Parts: sequence; structure tokens; C-alpha cells
Amino acid sequence: MYPIKIRAIEWTGKSVRWLNTNLLPHQEVYEESSDYERIARAIETMEIRGAPAIGVAAAFAVAAAVANANTSSVEELRLLGLRAVERLGKTRPTAYNLFWALDRIKRVLQREYIGVDDLKKAVVEEALKIYNEDVETNIRIGEIGEKLIEDGDTILTHCNAGALATSAFGTALAVIRVAWYKGKKIKVIATETRPVLQGARLTVWELKKEGIPVTLITDNMVGYVMYKKMVNKVIVGADRVLGDGHVINKIGTYTIAIAAKRHGIPFYVAAPTSTFDLRSRVEDVKIEERNPDEVRKVLNKVYITLEDVDVFNPSFDITPPDLVTGIITEKGVVTQPYEENIRKLFL
Amino acid sequence: MYPIKIRAIEWTGKSVRWLNTNLLPHQEVYEESSDYERIARAIETMEIRGAPAIGVAAAFAVAAAVANANTSSVEELRLLGLRAVERLGKTRPTAYNLFWALDRIKRVLQREYIGVDDLKKAVVEEALKIYNEDVETNIRIGEIGEKLIEDGDTILTHCNAGALATSAFGTALAVIRVAWYKGKKIKVIATETRPVLQGARLTVWELKKEGIPVTLITDNMVGYVMYKKMVNKVIVGADRVLGDGHVINKIGTYTIAIAAKRHGIPFYVAAPTSTFDLRSRVEDVKIEERNPDEVRKVLNKVYITLEDVDVFNPSFDITPPDLVTGIITEKGVVTQPYEENIRKLFL
Repeated sequence: MYPIKIRAIEWTGKSVRWLNTNLLPHQEVYEESSDYERIARAIETMEIRGAPAIGVAAAFAVAAAVANANTSSVEELRLLGLRAVERLGKTRPTAYNLFWALDRIKRVLQREYIGVDDLKKAVVEEALKIYNEDVETNIRIGEIGEKLIEDGDTILTHCNAGALATSAFGTALAVIRVAWYKGKKIKVIATETRPVLQGARLTVWELKKEGIPVTLITDNMVGYVMYKKMVNKVIVGADRVLGDGHVINKIGTYTIAIAAKRHGIPFYVAAPTSTFDLRSRVEDVKIEERNPDEVRKVLNKVYITLEDVDVFNPSFDITPPDLVTGIITEKGVVTQPYEENIRKLFL
Repeated sequence: MYPIKIRAIEWTGKSVRWLNTNLLPHQEVYEESSDYERIARAIETMEIRGAPAIGVAAAFAVAAAVANANTSSVEELRLLGLRAVERLGKTRPTAYNLFWALDRIKRVLQREYIGVDDLKKAVVEEALKIYNEDVETNIRIGEIGEKLIEDGDTILTHCNAGALATSAFGTALAVIRVAWYKGKKIKVIATETRPVLQGARLTVWELKKEGIPVTLITDNMVGYVMYKKMVNKVIVGADRVLGDGHVINKIGTYTIAIAAKRHGIPFYVAAPTSTFDLRSRVEDVKIEERNPDEVRKVLNKVYITLEDVDVFNPSFDITPPDLVTGIITEKGVVTQPYEENIRKLFL
């Protein structure tokens, strides 16, 4: 129905193949592995990144570990699978889809099986189901969200909530893709998204591949482009959405939401229901802090400051519900009051 | 009275000597020239940057042109001086101190003289006066502003409004310096300030030289450090302050001011009265847009995105007076209502 031009993660039948996003936009390198430790490191080093993509990759990693195991003992295979689940659960602490996907795989691992082949088949099938659901969910988010977009809109997006952050189509960028495919003449303003530059490296690359007009700005220009009335809507993705509507997403999201509020610009979050964490309170969410060298350097090679300067490097921030106009999910757009309406989403 | 550890611009007696801020923090290279065209290019390429520093450098450039001229005609010398004034006035459009300093030099050039030596002496003296006043003004701003700082404060600053942006002591960083010298245990959070990274390259270097604790963040972390209650005050410099209190400063300032307002954090601007433009309305101020490669690259060498991506690259933004808690000048702290209180400043 829609062209799928980028597949960031795929199951080859026995291993996982992924596009190494750290090398984009200048090199398009695909990696392949059936070693769950290698895939765990790919998630930690952000070769694979973006909440839905992390969840799918982790599920595939366990599937690869189980499918390639050389044992005839169901118990041994189950334990191996659970060890892989445990290792992958330690890769990154904030994105909820990781835990959601690993939970699904874990439940499958814990069922009864008559032989190892049945167990292998069940785990691979569950991982593929997670993957296929993600693609369908992305497209559905795009179809639901595009109704909010008007012809001629300029949409500001942050980081990369695109094909490179999911199995195929994106969340925030799915909305933009479907609006574009339906003929709406939209433009995108992409923030570069320091320190890892996912906006400059990934969103620009992805939108250029689609032919969607994109203008790159630095993160600190957000207020000014709104002041200049260059932005009609903001759409971002999410790494975790809480039951009360708090949105945890790439560092910088909160600052954009504050600026959007001042200017009366709608601020939308696009995220599948697998990103929703109904159990945690906002004070319980662990915000990952990464290596200070991400800030001290650019592209992991050039120092932009003194090499021993103190750095604060949180990867995510927290946007309170009062700043969120709506959350676009595959089940519809949720608006305030969030506590109540998010609960309804899961009935 | 206070140690002056950095002299970014000096008059050698016949030429201008400046620290090339583009090479900091990894190389400390001083340049020297008596060629006003060379100095104009140093301003355009940001070897010399920061509103007060630009004003002083421009005045010195005209002084160098006049002082080294080989003519016995007062008229010829005056014309040469006015040509230099005209050229320097075209270097950068936004910083008001440039036009303020060149106006002072122009008025001196236009007086009557009996010989070229008198004219040379008068122009050099005026340029030195502008320079010395700037140093005194900086220190005065520091002394007035430090009264707003409490022991234990963490102050967020943007870009570099320090010794490297003025003749010697800074504006925002003068306040921080004096508070530190008076024994207040303060800390600074410096935003890296893309695209030219004056925070990461200059403010970090300058504060480390003073021994003042500094933590570097990316520009998009501003909202989150406020959310985490890590910031007590914001102090920034200004490139131009209008009669109604609008503050034109480095891109990113406005976004910080919006975030500070949401969190009830005082947002101060430190600027000498030479930065005040009482004639322009906000819609008349030209916001400089620089080469898109500043955004596409980092440190003018490494591409961080596709080389042909569209870019918007304004160097400054506009902070409306409702977001400004106070403007620290050498004549006192101005607060709302700005229209009235700024007028009083110039009585």
C-alpha cells in the first residue's frame, strides 16, 4: 500500500541483519549476526537505536540465540534463551519497547514444549510477530496521524522517529510519510539533535530518500523558528509514555514542547502502545546517562572542547502531559485527560 | 583590583593584536595586523567575535589605518579613515556595539585638524578610550551583577559573553568572575552553542583558566537541567538591546529564556549601555544569517549531514522583554517596565 524504502532490521531466517546507523549518512553498511552478545553491543553502541527498533532487535537476538543453539534439551535451550533475555534487558534502560518485547519472548520461552524444535519455532515466530506488528502499527500510526496534518504545513521533528528507529516505516515520520503520499505539500524542519546527531545524520537522510523537503537547524534554533512562524506542528516519537501522559523521549524534546506551548503550536507524540508503561511513576523512570565523550566530541572523532571538561549527558528528558497536545497511537489519538484516556486505550 | 588573565584584543602602538578565537581551545594563536581589511575579515570570520570586542576591534582597525597612513593631507587622511569606517560597518549586521564604536570614531574623524598628526592622535586616542571604557564597564557590570548571585548558585550561561567577547573581563562572565573572586561558591553550566560552539570552545576554556567549576551540556539539555532543578539563574550577554527591552543575542538565547520562564528561574542579560539601540524597532533589526556550512559541518571541517541539505542558519534570535528578569548594565540593573526604565538609563 505504501512503498517501504528502508528496512533497518530484518530476520534472515537464522540471523539478524541491520543497518548500522552510526555510519549514516555517509556510509550505508549492513551488519549481520546471530550472536546475541554482538547484537546487544550493537544496541548499546547505537548501531541499532530508536525504541521500537531496539525492541524488535532484542527479540530477534534471542530468537537467533535459540534457533542456532546446538542442544537437544528443552530446559537447556530455555535457559539459554532466558540468559539472552537477561543480557539484552541490560543494554539500555529507558526505551520501554525493549522490556515489552523481551517480556513477550520470555513468556514464550516459559511455555511447555515437547522438543527443542517446537521451542525454536515458537520463539522465532514470536519475534517475527513483534516485527510484523511493528510494521503494521507504524503504518496505522501514519494513517491516523496524517489526518492531523494540513496541506502546506511545516512540521518540526526532533531526533529520528523514522524507519531507522523502527522495523520499517517510523512513528513521527510515518505520519509525515503518509501525509506526503496522500499529496499534502508539507515541509519538515529537522533539529540536528546533539550529541549523537540523529536529526542531521538520520532524519535528513531518510526524508531525502523520500523526496520530502527538509531543512536542518541546530537544536537551539527551535524557539526562533517558532517566533518566525515557520512551524505549524511539532511531531516527535517517544521512548516511553507513562500512564499519566508523561513522555520520555530524546533529550531536547521537553525544551521543544515548552517553546511550542508558548507559541500555541500543537505538540504531538507518535508512539505505538508498546511504548506505554502503565506501571511506572515518573520518579521511577531511569534516564540513561551516556559517555561524556559523546558531548566532548562530535561523530565520536573530533574534540570540540577541552578533553577533561565535566559533562552532563542525559540521553532523554521528560515532557509533562500539560505540554502534549495529543499522542498518536495505532489505536487512535489520545488527548487530555491522559490518565483516563490512556487507561481506555488498553481496555 | 581583579586579575585580568585574558586580553583578547590589544593596541600595540601601531597595530591590533588579537587572540584568534576560531582556534581555541586547542591552539592559542595571536594575530597582528595594521591592515583594516585584514581586521574586517577577522571580524567576518569570527576570529574576533562578541559585540563589545567587535566594536573595539573596529575602532582599532580604523585607528591603525589612519595612524599608518603615508600622507600629509588632512582631507586625504580623513577620507581614508571614513572608507575604513564604511568597510568595517559592513562586517556584521546585528551587534550594535560595532555601529556605536564606529560612530564615535567617525565623529572624531569629522572634526577640524591643523595637521595629520593631530588627526592621527585624536583617532588613536578615541579608539583607546573605547577600549579602556570597555574594560572598566565590564568590571562595573561584574560588580553590580554579582549582588544578584547567591553563594552556592549554579548559573547557566549561553555562548561566550566573557573576556573573549570583550576587551578583557566579559559581561555575563564578569558577573560570574566577580562573584567567584568575592568567595561565592558558584558553579556554571555552559551550553555548547551550536553551530560555532562558543560555549564548548571558549566559555569552558575561559572558566577553566579561572578555576571556576563548569559543566558542559548540549543546547537541547537546557529544559531538562531546569526540570532537574540544577539551575538557579541564567545570565547571558547581548548583541543588541532595544529601547523596549527586546534582547537580540546568540541563537538559542530565546529558547533558554522560555524554559527559564516556565521554571521561574531568573533570566538576566548583562550588557554595557553601548549595546543599547534606542532607535530601532524590533522588526527593523537585521538578524544575520551565516553560511549553511556552519550547520552542515562542525569546526569547519567535519560534515555531520548530507552536504546538500537545506539549512536555516540565523546567528541571533530575539528575546521579548516579558522573559527578561533584568538587564545588568554598568549604570545599574534595569527591570520592567523596560521602555520607561531604559529611557531613564540614558538621561
